[in-house]
Amino acid sequence: MQRSNLADLSCEQLNLAERYLQVRQLSDWITQPLATEDYVIQTMPDVSPPKWHLAHSTWFFETFLLVPHLPAYEVFHPQFGYLFNSYYETVGARHPRAHRGWLSRPTVETVFQYRAYVDAAMQRLLEQLPTPDLAVLLTLGLHHEQQHQELLLTDIKHILALNPLRPAYREQLLPAPSIAPREQWLDYAGGLYQIGAQGDQGFAFDNELPRHPVYLQDYYLANRLVTNGEYLEFMQAGGYSQAEHWLAEGWTVVQAQQWQAPLYWEQMDGDWWEMTLTGLRPLNLEAPVCHVSFYEANAYARWRGKRLPTEAEWEVAAASIAIQGNFLAQGYLHPVPALGRSRPDQLYGDLWEWTESAYSPYPGFQIAAGAVGEYNGKFMCNQMVLRGGSCVTPPHHVRPSYRNFFPAATRWQFSGIRLAQ
Amino acid sequence: MQRSNLADLSCEQLNLAERYLQVRQLSDWITQPLATEDYVIQTMPDVSPPKWHLAHSTWFFETFLLVPHLPAYEVFHPQFGYLFNSYYETVGARHPRAHRGWLSRPTVETVFQYRAYVDAAMQRLLEQLPTPDLAVLLTLGLHHEQQHQELLLTDIKHILALNPLRPAYREQLLPAPSIAPREQWLDYAGGLYQIGAQGDQGFAFDNELPRHPVYLQDYYLANRLVTNGEYLEFMQAGGYSQAEHWLAEGWTVVQAQQWQAPLYWEQMDGDWWEMTLTGLRPLNLEAPVCHVSFYEANAYARWRGKRLPTEAEWEVAAASIAIQGNFLAQGYLHPVPALGRSRPDQLYGDLWEWTESAYSPYPGFQIAAGAVGEYNGKFMCNQMVLRGGSCVTPPHHVRPSYRNFFPAATRWQFSGIRLAQ
Amino acid sequence: MQRSNLADLSCEQLNLAERYLQVRQLSDWITQPLATEDYVIQTMPDVSPPKWHLAHSTWFFETFLLVPHLPAYEVFHPQFGYLFNSYYETVGARHPRAHRGWLSRPTVETVFQYRAYVDAAMQRLLEQLPTPDLAVLLTLGLHHEQQHQELLLTDIKHILALNPLRPAYREQLLPAPSIAPREQWLDYAGGLYQIGAQGDQGFAFDNELPRHPVYLQDYYLANRLVTNGEYLEFMQAGGYSQAEHWLAEGWTVVQAQQWQAPLYWEQMDGDWWEMTLTGLRPLNLEAPVCHVSFYEANAYARWRGKRLPTEAEWEVAAASIAIQGNFLAQGYLHPVPALGRSRPDQLYGDLWEWTESAYSPYPGFQIAAGAVGEYNGKFMCNQMVLRGGSCVTPPHHVRPSYRNFFPAATRWQFSGIRLAQ
Amino acid sequence: MQRSNLADLSCEQLNLAERYLQVRQLSDWITQPLATEDYVIQTMPDVSPPKWHLAHSTWFFETFLLVPHLPAYEVFHPQFGYLFNSYYETVGARHPRAHRGWLSRPTVETVFQYRAYVDAAMQRLLEQLPTPDLAVLLTLGLHHEQQHQELLLTDIKHILALNPLRPAYREQLLPAPSIAPREQWLDYAGGLYQIGAQGDQGFAFDNELPRHPVYLQDYYLANRLVTNGEYLEFMQAGGYSQAEHWLAEGWTVVQAQQWQAPLYWEQMDGDWWEMTLTGLRPLNLEAPVCHVSFYEANAYARWRGKRLPTEAEWEVAAASIAIQGNFLAQGYLHPVPALGRSRPDQLYGDLWEWTESAYSPYPGFQIAAGAVGEYNGKFMCNQMVLRGGSCVTPPHHVRPSYRNFFPAATRWQFSGIRLAQ
Repeated sequence: MQRSNLADLSCEQLNLAERYLQVRQLSDWITQPLATEDYVIQTMPDVSPPKWHLAHSTWFFETFLLVPHLPAYEVFHPQFGYLFNSYYETVGARHPRAHRGWLSRPTVETVFQYRAYVDAAMQRLLEQLPTPDLAVLLTLGLHHEQQHQELLLTDIKHILALNPLRPAYREQLLPAPSIAPREQWLDYAGGLYQIGAQGDQGFAFDNELPRHPVYLQDYYLANRLVTNGEYLEFMQAGGYSQAEHWLAEGWTVVQAQQWQAPLYWEQMDGDWWEMTLTGLRPLNLEAPVCHVSFYEANAYARWRGKRLPTEAEWEVAAASIAIQGNFLAQGYLHPVPALGRSRPDQLYGDLWEWTESAYSPYPGFQIAAGAVGEYNGKFMCNQMVLRGGSCVTPPHHVRPSYRNFFPAATRWQFSGIRLAQ
Repeated sequence: MQRSNLADLSCEQLNLAERYLQVRQLSDWITQPLATEDYVIQTMPDVSPPKWHLAHSTWFFETFLLVPHLPAYEVFHPQFGYLFNSYYETVGARHPRAHRGWLSRPTVETVFQYRAYVDAAMQRLLEQLPTPDLAVLLTLGLHHEQQHQELLLTDIKHILALNPLRPAYREQLLPAPSIAPREQWLDYAGGLYQIGAQGDQGFAFDNELPRHPVYLQDYYLANRLVTNGEYLEFMQAGGYSQAEHWLAEGWTVVQAQQWQAPLYWEQMDGDWWEMTLTGLRPLNLEAPVCHVSFYEANAYARWRGKRLPTEAEWEVAAASIAIQGNFLAQGYLHPVPALGRSRPDQLYGDLWEWTESAYSPYPGFQIAAGAVGEYNGKFMCNQMVLRGGSCVTPPHHVRPSYRNFFPAATRWQFSGIRLAQ
Repeated sequence: MQRSNLADLSCEQLNLAERYLQVRQLSDWITQPLATEDYVIQTMPDVSPPKWHLAHSTWFFETFLLVPHLPAYEVFHPQFGYLFNSYYETVGARHPRAHRGWLSRPTVETVFQYRAYVDAAMQRLLEQLPTPDLAVLLTLGLHHEQQHQELLLTDIKHILALNPLRPAYREQLLPAPSIAPREQWLDYAGGLYQIGAQGDQGFAFDNELPRHPVYLQDYYLANRLVTNGEYLEFMQAGGYSQAEHWLAEGWTVVQAQQWQAPLYWEQMDGDWWEMTLTGLRPLNLEAPVCHVSFYEANAYARWRGKRLPTEAEWEVAAASIAIQGNFLAQGYLHPVPALGRSRPDQLYGDLWEWTESAYSPYPGFQIAAGAVGEYNGKFMCNQMVLRGGSCVTPPHHVRPSYRNFFPAATRWQFSGIRLAQ
Repeated sequence: MQRSNLADLSCEQLNLAERYLQVRQLSDWITQPLATEDYVIQTMPDVSPPKWHLAHSTWFFETFLLVPHLPAYEVFHPQFGYLFNSYYETVGARHPRAHRGWLSRPTVETVFQYRAYVDAAMQRLLEQLPTPDLAVLLTLGLHHEQQHQELLLTDIKHILALNPLRPAYREQLLPAPSIAPREQWLDYAGGLYQIGAQGDQGFAFDNELPRHPVYLQDYYLANRLVTNGEYLEFMQAGGYSQAEHWLAEGWTVVQAQQWQAPLYWEQMDGDWWEMTLTGLRPLNLEAPVCHVSFYEANAYARWRGKRLPTEAEWEVAAASIAIQGNFLAQGYLHPVPALGRSRPDQLYGDLWEWTESAYSPYPGFQIAAGAVGEYNGKFMCNQMVLRGGSCVTPPHHVRPSYRNFFPAATRWQFSGIRLAQ
């Protein structure tokens, strides 16, 4: 796939069949540099083998669209439902998540045959004008596959980074700004605001609904993400060895896991290096700090005498800003110093930004009936909200109201820090 | 201690020395029925041996009041700081929480000597008029000891309930209402409200501050707590074996722990019994369901098509209601059917009520400097807020703005369910 | 590789270069049916990915023969020593065993290049007449590779058997006897015997030395292995639910792992099936019971009122019998009813036989100096001895004195039961 | 109890009722210095609360003697069978071993009432001449209680040693030799020997039977146990950080548990101290090294170029030596430099000596029918044999043929090292 194509793709302007094809092809493009062996392994329970992602997103279309809606459709393989269901209890039993790396079969070749088989059936299904219900399901399936595209790159990075040979996913390095702008504080007036998705303006997940009022007090946001250089100061000041900066749970994790730096940092002969999708690179002090947990983001903010923004504060600031930034289509595959596109900068792209908001239902949130209702609601406990997308987020995937969420100890995601006060 | 004394005790009306004595004596009264052996053991990491509670609350006064403020004070034992510090990193190393049950020494007798030694020194300290700073620390120490009084009873219950002999803590059974009122829905108008403690109206923990506006939509609260009989319907309808009612994390815990009923319920020959502080009793279907986790409260509410209240909704409803109910002073030591004191009933006392609010800092929350700053703020992650006090809460301890908090899987607390919609 | 070639291969009759080639080619033949994906995964810590076995046995030749003995030899890759060292502490740090399945790179293709590179260098090394020291190391390396050939098939079976698709390794099924002979008891006279390897009669591992006298009392051995049908009687009599048959440790494992049958048995619609290297097959009641732990072997024997033989009893009985049986070269890849070659039958081949002997040093055992000394001696604790080879043992690999050893809970090995009394 | 009485007690010379009383009174004497709190706690799963030992040994007499043999006997409490059964599956369900420290009730006072109740009933039972069967069971019960007397002291030491206050069990310190004799080697001729108990010469456990021939080669034993000073040399030479001395399993344990010295050693300001039953004492370099695991014993021996004796070698050397040494009756409660009573010295008393023999059934070993058959046989896997008794072994409890056994990682027992070659 050409990068120019990626940049031009606007899902909303295409008909559904074309959108389907474009999204599906991007998955192929993402996995194209992999060796067969890379598709198979699972380096921790959170990570899924790349071939599992490819098959699971295909299973989603087969299960929720083809089986109920395409007459005479026959499933590709009777056991793929068991193998490639992720967490839908309503749909039936499934292979345990932590054992996805035990499966050498089906082979990668068979998984691609599965994709082609489902794609062909989907084209048949989409030849006639889809009903509104089907359009909703299809759109959900496409956003679902986009989420797995981001996870694919996140998991590929983990798989390659844990390998002592430190192989690169792609070799190219694009030119990027070499200097981050100076830290500044942008102020926002308090008052009653509306947050959440506007039902009539394109796709949104159920967890972004309903739109509702929140009362905010006056607040400030930093103009950009925290940089590696700034985070290194925290480390050099003893940040990882002083309990007073940390949440109690975070401190327990720091000690149990012996964290001393963000994930993927390595010190060699006194110098810091960082594993990236383009291989092991000397740490760029001007680039945003990446692969930190909520605990680390919170501890850094507290050490600075600041805090993280709430998700409402973030959304109010982001609502009026164009959705531009360092996404997958830019091709960096890594956060870069601010590109100067907006104030605040880097709200979109580069890194998912930890907020201090726990992931909770919005007032009036309704869980949909059936398996699709398991998409979001059942995870609303002990997770923190992240906002804004990252350098591996596919085109046209994020919105101001988009709520990503992960447990506070998560580090393998492309996650970073924006300060508030 | 006479129950009439307990009922008359109003902390605010007494001078500090008298308040100190009354609170400290209640700890003695609570532990008076225990055998020496009961003071020593720890039945799970969450539980502390009763003698540890007695020594730890004493250590708090010694460390934060006597050592800095009483000239020439000598600590009772140089290693008690190590043994009886709970979680204050700033104060130094401490004995691991999970190993509190490894300590046969100091003996119970020595712990009571420690209490007497510190009490005598405290009386010397309080002979002169305390400074405002000292009064604040003393008041904090008294509320701290009250929290441990509640934990004492909670932990004593666990210690006795896990013993196959099922011994009773006290034998008396007081008469209580035999019928719970019918479930009704009370409606509350939305709008902008203020929640949090009012700084000028008596003691509050830092986590109740600052008072701040929140916007609420119209909501309904149930007039009373969910009863054992109602919860039993959920169980008989297969509640513990159907994933669709549960948060994903909750379902994992249900399966891993093989939960099939609330904690302390036992089925014998087809009948349900419940372990209480007054021994094993046949389940009272009209009494509130007790010792459920947030996961169970949430699943029950979802099965009913309802939800749990947010902490703001709860506080707004509670703000105008007199703080009366089934507390420790009533002597039931167990939740009872609603006493009919208010509408909604049972907001105060009987059981801590799970809310759907994660425990987060209020806007503008400031962590105090020094060890006292570790009291609340560092736990603001992956815990849920509970409100209203319980049947083992000491007199004059709760307020409308009081925020209790525990992890979602917690069941050994006196926790129950109020529905909202 | 032709099966006829396998049968003709006698290591002792070939020169070293030819022996080297034959052994190495058998590894290729074993892995030839695998898909690339099968080479990569690790289904439990005991299992190694097939490509790891191929690289590790190659590393052995590189490290212990080429580096010290071939002038100007350059290692294939500087990090392969780290990746493919198994447990030689003396040689340096190594990749953790439980994480061998995290390695997608080097690819399978690269591993075969590594093999070819080392094979070429070995041919250069072996062009001149090897010194006696070198011949000893080479012979050790060849027996080492043979051990990994057996492990390859054992691990491939586990990898395929845990896959819900139950793929077959090879499809062919050879004709075998359909009936096991009747159980009979062969008696052996007590007295002073010699066991252990005779230093002057071909290769032996250090743990078979020195040859030494043992005193045996009169004993009986069963004429053949215990069959599936006989073991099924134990199961149907409640064997897995009655503590009295079991060693205390074994009973703990039975309950913790919920064992109810040998590994790889599956019950479908009331019938028992068994996963084999040729796919899922109906259980053959006449074939030897396979993939049982020492605990199960011991419990079965005790239920029968018998016991397992000691390793000395086994060796004395085996010493005078020709080393023939159902080995890898026979092509069954599974135990079959006794072929009637000897009395007792099935001592060699079919299945490794658990003995009641703990794996201990023989009197006068000396650990060799250097890394080669880590081969056997450091495992002489908490393992049980097995004897006789199995249906996946390569040609010319076992001897009467050969001591295999595994922890008592091991089931993925081709292990079975012979009774003694 | 007077120490002179202890020394005079010869079980064989007393009638059974007198023997019963003497053994039972020794348990009282052992626990007399304890505080009530010391009786209750369990500091690791291997350790039992002292009151549990007192009740369990009583339960043994109640269950195996009184219930079947004393007409109209009524058990003291119907649930004590559940609480105080240790591991007899045949007798019924039991309280989990790891949870013995969860039981504050029955109180210590009730446990002593239980003992008195059973003692009174036993006196009634023993008033008439016991049948031979009963005499066998009684003798077994007395040796069983003696084993728990030794465990009582072992567990009391652990309970007190893990307490940061380091309390002493008894304060007295007896004078002992100040210098260990020089290490010497005593040689023993090989040949065919008999080991195991002689059925007609007093009590023996079933695991000592049957007496049988073994063939030994020539061997040497050290004249005394390895001293603290000698072991310290191993430590100072890097013993705990060099893999090459260790069994593979032992090395894994050393790293996982971060062992750097024997259990109960503490380094303060550069000096080594040792926790003993008489409190924390400076390390005595001349006394035998104590509280080492089999792994440490084996590693030390290998570092010295020696080995541990087999149990047969030990027994042959011990058979002709008088059973004298530093036992409980001597009152040291700790190993002391050799008293010079025999050559080799310290075979009996001071410390249990690790052998290199795995704990296996003797040839012809028969498991007794019923619950008593669970006494020994079911533990014959993954344990190592220790010989000779220790400084906390009660009078008249050990024999040359006595086989003690523990897992290789065990350190809380009074275990030490004798070298062989």
